[in-house]
Amino acid sequence: MTVAEYMQHLGTQARAASQILARTTTAIKNQALATIAQQLEQHRNTLLSANAKDVAAGQAQNLDPAFLDRLTLKDSTIDSMIKGLTEIIALPDPIGTISDLHYRPAGFQVGKMRVPLGVVGIIYESRPNVTIDAAALCLKSGNASILRGGSESIHSNQAIAQCIEAGLTATGIPATAVQVVETTDRAAVGELIRMSKYVDVIIPRGGKGLIERISQEAKIPVIKHLDGICHVYIDDQADLEKALAVAYNAKTQRYGTCNTMETLLVAQSIATQILPPLAAKYQAAGVELRGCPATRALLPHLKEATEEDWRTEYLAPILSIRIVTGVEEAIQHINTYGSQHTDSIITEDWNRAWLFLTAVDSSSVMVNASTRLADGFVYGLGAEIGISTDKFHARGPVGLEGLTSQKFIVLGNGHLRQ
Amino acid sequence: MTVAEYMQHLGTQARAASQILARTTTAIKNQALATIAQQLEQHRNTLLSANAKDVAAGQAQNLDPAFLDRLTLKDSTIDSMIKGLTEIIALPDPIGTISDLHYRPAGFQVGKMRVPLGVVGIIYESRPNVTIDAAALCLKSGNASILRGGSESIHSNQAIAQCIEAGLTATGIPATAVQVVETTDRAAVGELIRMSKYVDVIIPRGGKGLIERISQEAKIPVIKHLDGICHVYIDDQADLEKALAVAYNAKTQRYGTCNTMETLLVAQSIATQILPPLAAKYQAAGVELRGCPATRALLPHLKEATEEDWRTEYLAPILSIRIVTGVEEAIQHINTYGSQHTDSIITEDWNRAWLFLTAVDSSSVMVNASTRLADGFVYGLGAEIGISTDKFHARGPVGLEGLTSQKFIVLGNGHLRQ
Repeated sequence: MTVAEYMQHLGTQARAASQILARTTTAIKNQALATIAQQLEQHRNTLLSANAKDVAAGQAQNLDPAFLDRLTLKDSTIDSMIKGLTEIIALPDPIGTISDLHYRPAGFQVGKMRVPLGVVGIIYESRPNVTIDAAALCLKSGNASILRGGSESIHSNQAIAQCIEAGLTATGIPATAVQVVETTDRAAVGELIRMSKYVDVIIPRGGKGLIERISQEAKIPVIKHLDGICHVYIDDQADLEKALAVAYNAKTQRYGTCNTMETLLVAQSIATQILPPLAAKYQAAGVELRGCPATRALLPHLKEATEEDWRTEYLAPILSIRIVTGVEEAIQHINTYGSQHTDSIITEDWNRAWLFLTAVDSSSVMVNASTRLADGFVYGLGAEIGISTDKFHARGPVGLEGLTSQKFIVLGNGHLRQ
Repeated sequence: MTVAEYMQHLGTQARAASQILARTTTAIKNQALATIAQQLEQHRNTLLSANAKDVAAGQAQNLDPAFLDRLTLKDSTIDSMIKGLTEIIALPDPIGTISDLHYRPAGFQVGKMRVPLGVVGIIYESRPNVTIDAAALCLKSGNASILRGGSESIHSNQAIAQCIEAGLTATGIPATAVQVVETTDRAAVGELIRMSKYVDVIIPRGGKGLIERISQEAKIPVIKHLDGICHVYIDDQADLEKALAVAYNAKTQRYGTCNTMETLLVAQSIATQILPPLAAKYQAAGVELRGCPATRALLPHLKEATEEDWRTEYLAPILSIRIVTGVEEAIQHINTYGSQHTDSIITEDWNRAWLFLTAVDSSSVMVNASTRLADGFVYGLGAEIGISTDKFHARGPVGLEGLTSQKFIVLGNGHLRQ
């Protein structure tokens, strides 16, 4: 069997399983998730020793320490996989939800019923726990899934796949409802993202390179997450205490995340008041600051921020600062240089807050809150399969609902078209 | 300027206009729509004489009569364009609608605000009135649009474009909010469907060939409408009178539409009762019937339905008929051979109705209603930019909401990530 044939085979099986899953009750889906959790608990040692093989192979290949860290399963990682399953069990099942059901003048009812997308393909890199997360979210939302993890975590993923399979089978759900690709051949990815007959959506999780390549080559819709160039704008009607706290938190609470602020915008007339104390706080935390000419006039020791800085996602303790004339220039800067991810205004002024909320074209727009709050769990989605920087289908953190669609239902009593 | 440069230029202008439109109030958008309607009224003669040029050129090229019919503008077509604008003015503006705003435990609020997609590219064939429909729906939903009509209707479309431009300008909206492509060069389409930097979604309206080609080649999400292979399943718990009326209406009310029934499924134990009178009605209306072996055992004069018939959208007075064992086999037939468009069950049985509603994977699923009811206007969407046979983003008839997305909004009071 060639890789193409193998993938087509997985596709056919996934499509068939998806029709059964679409009709599977919440109780059965939850029971499968609980059984998978039990399997993980019972096979801790198998998982850890499979993972040890991957880690040893990775060390032999001199993979970098951060990569190996993401690859490594610990008892605590397994704990959190089990906890994740428990949380997904507790989430309401979106499937079958009927909304907007109303009578039309002719006397029949029209509404919308939430349904699974069908088959979801997930492509991810080193973290083996994504296998459980992704499988569980797809299962709960009634979707069959085909999971393609990084080749470096193949043994871990196969061990996890066995737990999933055992959990599904014990519950009477076809094992093909969740399929973990068994080959590490890269051609499998090429096939997966092109078999539109069998796969309804692709979700890549990993570095920007991976995601851009997949988006370029896919013949199937992709829910993708690219840059996070996030801004905080401190308006001249800001409460200074809130401004200091939010701007500090948005940059320093974690440096490597997509919702970390990368550029701070400050209204001209408040700059002399807020920038010196804020700069001192950042510098005490070891954040390198880069400023526009006006900023450097105030804080001459800063490095110059170039045009490129405004377009850069540092993912590091670096912050670019720009002084703007007011909210309009801030909005213009964000819509020009931002990545439509997450942006926040700090102001006590009602009109400026609403203008910012309306005019900033980003997946999360905030008033008096840290950009770091942009997260599926923080928002209460209960889980997150990814964050979409697109506007089509899903925008921002994607939970169970992002893995569903809605069909129209019509309830009549012999109604005809006149 | 090459075609590529010209299209990039339209794209840049559309992107800029989209940022202004996203902030334009409902009142202004409605005023622009009303002014465009006045322009159409004032320039009836210009429109008709521009159209006459297109029709003459089409006649000289020996275009087929149905094509010429769609191409021809009459006073009544202009009336209905004006009426369409009035109806779109009356629709509620989806933009800015906030839903699900709720407090998170930490004390900030999270909700979703409806926003435009940005720039919509519409590619259509001969009907010049699509120019007005599409422009108006995009405008009302806050999207800039780039409209590419058929080369055969170029004079008509340019005349309509002038009315639109005059309406926009008089209201203070940039004329570039609606741009009608001025070249008939086919390369313009190739460019439009690939300039993902400037266009957020493509909506092709026309024959299946056009839509398949565009979907294959586009580098931008496409809202597409392919086959309509629709089914009515008459269950053995059907009310016979409703069954006769619905099955007759679904086939004969109009033959050439996507929501017309193409295959009738009948439960075995009711077939002898329902099929002979129904067949007589169809035959009286001139519908050619093709049957499975069991159907032909009952109605021996029928032509045989082949495997290909089950997969065919006739768009003609032809109907294939299959006798099935019951609702499960009907669902299986529909999910195997159907096109996920519109399917209806006729039954008085609660459980079978719900099973059908849940298990049939189509964009409209009906109980005791004619498939011909699947339509944006009939459903009360107020307008329809297209019908989606996909599950991603929008499914079924697409109204204003299908041209929008939702962004998250977070309203805090200095809230930080802990």
